[in-house]
Amino acid sequence: MSFLPKLTQFVDNHQEEYIEALRQWVAVESDSSDITKRPELHRMMDMTAEKLRLMGGKVELVDIGKQELTNGDVISLPKVVTAQFGNDPSKDTVCVYGHVDVQPAKIEDGWATDPYNLTDINGNLYGRGASDNKAPVLAWIHAVEAYQALNIDLPVNVKFLIEGMEETGSNGLDAMIMAQRETFFSDVDYIVISDCGWLSKRPALTYGTRGNCYFFAEIEGPKQDLHSGVYGGTVIEPMTDLIGILDTLISPSGTILIPGIREAVAPFSDEEWKMYQDIEFDIENYKEKIGISQLMYSNKVDLLAHRWRYPTLSIHGIEGAFSAPGSKTVIPAKVTAKFSIRQVPNMDPAVVKKQVTDYLHSVFAKRKSPNKLKVTMIIGAKPWLADTQHTLYEAGKAAVKRVFNMEPDLIREGGTIPIARTFQDVTGKSIIMLPIGGFDDGLHSQNEKMSR
Amino acid sequence: MSFLPKLTQFVDNHQEEYIEALRQWVAVESDSSDITKRPELHRMMDMTAEKLRLMGGKVELVDIGKQELTNGDVISLPKVVTAQFGNDPSKDTVCVYGHVDVQPAKIEDGWATDPYNLTDINGNLYGRGASDNKAPVLAWIHAVEAYQALNIDLPVNVKFLIEGMEETGSNGLDAMIMAQRETFFSDVDYIVISDCGWLSKRPALTYGTRGNCYFFAEIEGPKQDLHSGVYGGTVIEPMTDLIGILDTLISPSGTILIPGIREAVAPFSDEEWKMYQDIEFDIENYKEKIGISQLMYSNKVDLLAHRWRYPTLSIHGIEGAFSAPGSKTVIPAKVTAKFSIRQVPNMDPAVVKKQVTDYLHSVFAKRKSPNKLKVTMIIGAKPWLADTQHTLYEAGKAAVKRVFNMEPDLIREGGTIPIARTFQDVTGKSIIMLPIGGFDDGLHSQNEKMSR
Repeated sequence: MSFLPKLTQFVDNHQEEYIEALRQWVAVESDSSDITKRPELHRMMDMTAEKLRLMGGKVELVDIGKQELTNGDVISLPKVVTAQFGNDPSKDTVCVYGHVDVQPAKIEDGWATDPYNLTDINGNLYGRGASDNKAPVLAWIHAVEAYQALNIDLPVNVKFLIEGMEETGSNGLDAMIMAQRETFFSDVDYIVISDCGWLSKRPALTYGTRGNCYFFAEIEGPKQDLHSGVYGGTVIEPMTDLIGILDTLISPSGTILIPGIREAVAPFSDEEWKMYQDIEFDIENYKEKIGISQLMYSNKVDLLAHRWRYPTLSIHGIEGAFSAPGSKTVIPAKVTAKFSIRQVPNMDPAVVKKQVTDYLHSVFAKRKSPNKLKVTMIIGAKPWLADTQHTLYEAGKAAVKRVFNMEPDLIREGGTIPIARTFQDVTGKSIIMLPIGGFDDGLHSQNEKMSR
Repeated sequence: MSFLPKLTQFVDNHQEEYIEALRQWVAVESDSSDITKRPELHRMMDMTAEKLRLMGGKVELVDIGKQELTNGDVISLPKVVTAQFGNDPSKDTVCVYGHVDVQPAKIEDGWATDPYNLTDINGNLYGRGASDNKAPVLAWIHAVEAYQALNIDLPVNVKFLIEGMEETGSNGLDAMIMAQRETFFSDVDYIVISDCGWLSKRPALTYGTRGNCYFFAEIEGPKQDLHSGVYGGTVIEPMTDLIGILDTLISPSGTILIPGIREAVAPFSDEEWKMYQDIEFDIENYKEKIGISQLMYSNKVDLLAHRWRYPTLSIHGIEGAFSAPGSKTVIPAKVTAKFSIRQVPNMDPAVVKKQVTDYLHSVFAKRKSPNKLKVTMIIGAKPWLADTQHTLYEAGKAAVKRVFNMEPDLIREGGTIPIARTFQDVTGKSIIMLPIGGFDDGLHSQNEKMSR
């Protein structure tokens, strides 16, 4: 490892160039949710491919098909960039996943700076996509570049898989991964994802994400909306029924009341408890960030456990009822509640679907309502959990220790990164999430930044 | 009354002219909710005034001020037309209230005919505003005209009060009525409103309407919307709290659970029960029209009583939660439920406001949530109830009997017609609602019609 001081010296010397590269990438408004920005997104994929090509990588722009819009229009999905550096069969092959599309951002949303003009304020680089996920992608590319510039042999073969639809659900990526299982992925040993953040100021490795089962509960009554003055008192209102069954899902103290859900959760071991106890996490800072006076739990372990390794149920809203400002005296005829349950080991979405459906029908039956209930599960994403004893995590820990001179926290994500589970299921390989962003980077929010 | 046969003959002979007058009025798209149609609405008021002026009435177009739009623009309200025919102090004075603005209508909403081109199909005259309220207004005008044409002295002095903002809340009318209390209304003895419908094929007189107390219940938690994956399980969600308190408002069988509400309702007397029992009402037809298999009550008396003379509570919707089609994994930070309670004698909106506010705060307190609840009552409209033994109702019954050769049903409206209560409170005079429209006229719906 005698080349390491040279490498870090090189990286330090080229910091301004790296920031300039990030500035160029942030300047591209590659918002995947806004179809009017699609040309920018295509340009972003081309720029990514070109950068890797100039470094001598074996680069492909993989066509992953079309996207059908709600208005019936069909437009091209941004191509996926794959690249390969080295194909020595005696070396392991690491595949780095990342994305170069971004969430929407407008200065009038409350940005202090132009979100598409990377701005350095006290060493924090503000700009949309700075942390999620353009800088982390560039960090991996620049790492390879540094080895090349110094003529140091890469210790592993490196592959890149860079997509442009992550922020809107990675449309087309699952199919592409499955299609390339025996080709691009055939020699991949490890997969690294740097699309997540630390929990605190301490570096972290992420070894799990929660899945998500998303439900629609629709109650239909009259054939059309009714005037609440003229009909109120004579009809059994779908909205009252819906509120009634929604109120049976979760207790005020956060307990999911659907039978079978809690029983399926993997037991919380003493070792795990100990590990959670050692993780650096500032409850007061967390409360302040959210802007609330009291959390669901008052101690660190319970809080982190319910964020990462216990299921939770959120009611997102109701479609079909009156939701505008002002007043309207309507009895909505058909109302659909949207709620979701975050999945953890050892829950199984297929079982959860049945548990939720059966339970809601049983509580609805007790109301003796003539209205009709329909329960559908529209997303059933499994959780992902890696073995932290695996070589990949040992390597990750060693790398963090070398750079930061401290042990990383081993953490999970409360949210869902379905691609991790897809990689695991399709390739059977080990995955590590190695966050490069800080805990306060403001992903998806105003004033997103990446610290130097 | 020897002139009556002459009068009815005259009316029959002029039916086509009356329909032509209605055709001209229906052709004016006097939609008060659409400000781009405001010039048409002004034209409609001018046409109304002109018609009354040509008949020799003492007509005024009363300026009732401006309307401030949500975008800050200020536009003129349509003037109110007042007219007077006769001022003999030895006669009683009857004031007829009506409106010539209409609800929106577009052929693509599902109209079989052009809504602004009055179309006669089998004796039903289809067109927006045909029944609500242009034909009834014209009927009263044409009645006066018939007396004039035949040179018969009007048995009473007749006044007209015709407005153009009824469909959007009679903006400006309350103030105008109060301002003219000692002038236009000083000699008014009776007020007649024909802005309602029959209950069945049998003619009806309406002697009561329900009022309405409309509430906003807002629960505020985090300072901004949160991602349900990242934060779910650690925060006490405002939406769960809101569903929890909404579920305590009304039972599945329609009982309002707020203490004090039921106790305030005027007792249902045996005489009233008997009267309800005699009213013509087709439950099967009502069910079919709504498109439901089972109503809240299965017998006529309970059904009508809960439609007219008992309070009811409807939950209209929630603002601030996710209400669009599709899925979104959001924990809404601030959610506001909209619900209303229909008011009946002897409920008092001021008392109801306190009952609802105290109750919601007490059930919310039991949840021990750190979120903040705010309850506001944005509308507090009282019910209106007339004495059916009054001369006015005797006259109404006699008139119906003469024309239709049957006794009218004495009915109420479940909805709120605030102007009735305002007339009662400001003028202290008796009001009668004398519906001219049929029970199946489709007010506010597609294919509104008025039968010949």
